[in-house]
Amino acid sequence: MTRLKQQIAFIKEIDQLKYITRKTKLFASNRHENDAEHSWHLALMTLILAEHANEEIDVLKVLKMVLIHDLVEIDAGDIFLFDTTKNHNNTEEELRAATRIFSILPRDQALELISLWKEFEYGQTKEAAFAKAIDRLQPVLQNESNDGGSWVEYSVPYDTIYAKIEHMNTGSTTLWNYVEALLNTMKKKEILCQ
Amino acid sequence: MTRLKQQIAFIKEIDQLKYITRKTKLFASNRHENDAEHSWHLALMTLILAEHANEEIDVLKVLKMVLIHDLVEIDAGDIFLFDTTKNHNNTEEELRAATRIFSILPRDQALELISLWKEFEYGQTKEAAFAKAIDRLQPVLQNESNDGGSWVEYSVPYDTIYAKIEHMNTGSTTLWNYVEALLNTMKKKEILCQ
Repeated sequence: MTRLKQQIAFIKEIDQLKYITRKTKLFASNRHENDAEHSWHLALMTLILAEHANEEIDVLKVLKMVLIHDLVEIDAGDIFLFDTTKNHNNTEEELRAATRIFSILPRDQALELISLWKEFEYGQTKEAAFAKAIDRLQPVLQNESNDGGSWVEYSVPYDTIYAKIEHMNTGSTTLWNYVEALLNTMKKKEILCQ
Repeated sequence: MTRLKQQIAFIKEIDQLKYITRKTKLFASNRHENDAEHSWHLALMTLILAEHANEEIDVLKVLKMVLIHDLVEIDAGDIFLFDTTKNHNNTEEELRAATRIFSILPRDQALELISLWKEFEYGQTKEAAFAKAIDRLQPVLQNESNDGGSWVEYSVPYDTIYAKIEHMNTGSTTLWNYVEALLNTMKKKEILCQ
């Protein structure tokens, strides 16, 4: 029963993810998205788009990654991908958060999820590369539907966006090609600045 | 490219799930939960609690079910499990919704997801039974943290709750035993009426 109690405590704790607000907004909307909604969306995108991964991937593993990837933000907060004052990969603060939050679980599960979260952060395996591609793709689609959305709001120029998002290519060339065309169209329409 | 365009159209459409508000509220909170947050929470609960299923389950299949199980509510709306005027399993309206929403996808994916959604609704396989147990468990935990929450708000008596939630036992006796003890404590404390 202790094991189940630890698991239930974790389930309660992660409810906090629903209060972490992202910079991006829902599709064609003024309402900011929260991390739980975002994570759900990434999970469904993983199911639907897995066939476009550059290499055959373990879908269950990618799902685990996208479902847990933002839990550290319960403690560390959401950091904008294009934040110029704070590195998006603020590993020390996020590592502390991962340790605290996942350690609510029984030890074997805590170790598995910490390891999966690190794998996602490092982005070196084919599953992590694909999970990261999906994590990049979603706000691109949202910002496109919102006439540039958070990129326009925070004056992020085309080149900066391109440089950050180009890494999608490691996980999925098909999805990156789609996004590249989309960014170029937005530049031509002068929605994005040079 | 047509295939990818269909997939992207589906990804945009399902954003609507974030606007579907449930009767239950977040843990120890006055804020109503939406279906996307709920579905994310069920997915993580599936990962953490799969070991308590009565039979060994295909976790990926359960994840797919819980991630998509409420998409029909984009058209059909959320129906309270204890609604006395409208059956929770309003299959005709929900079937129309499933057909419309999933058919945005390429045909093979649409067929797979409609089939999974039906399997969840019928609740006859071990995966569907476990997914349904998780779907029952989450609002129990939320209502417990909110002094009876939606049960008290809508005056649902103990016996009615018990009868609806007891089906959890088919998917997981361990989780049902946990919930049964919790309901009995709430009855003793007179949070729930007879």
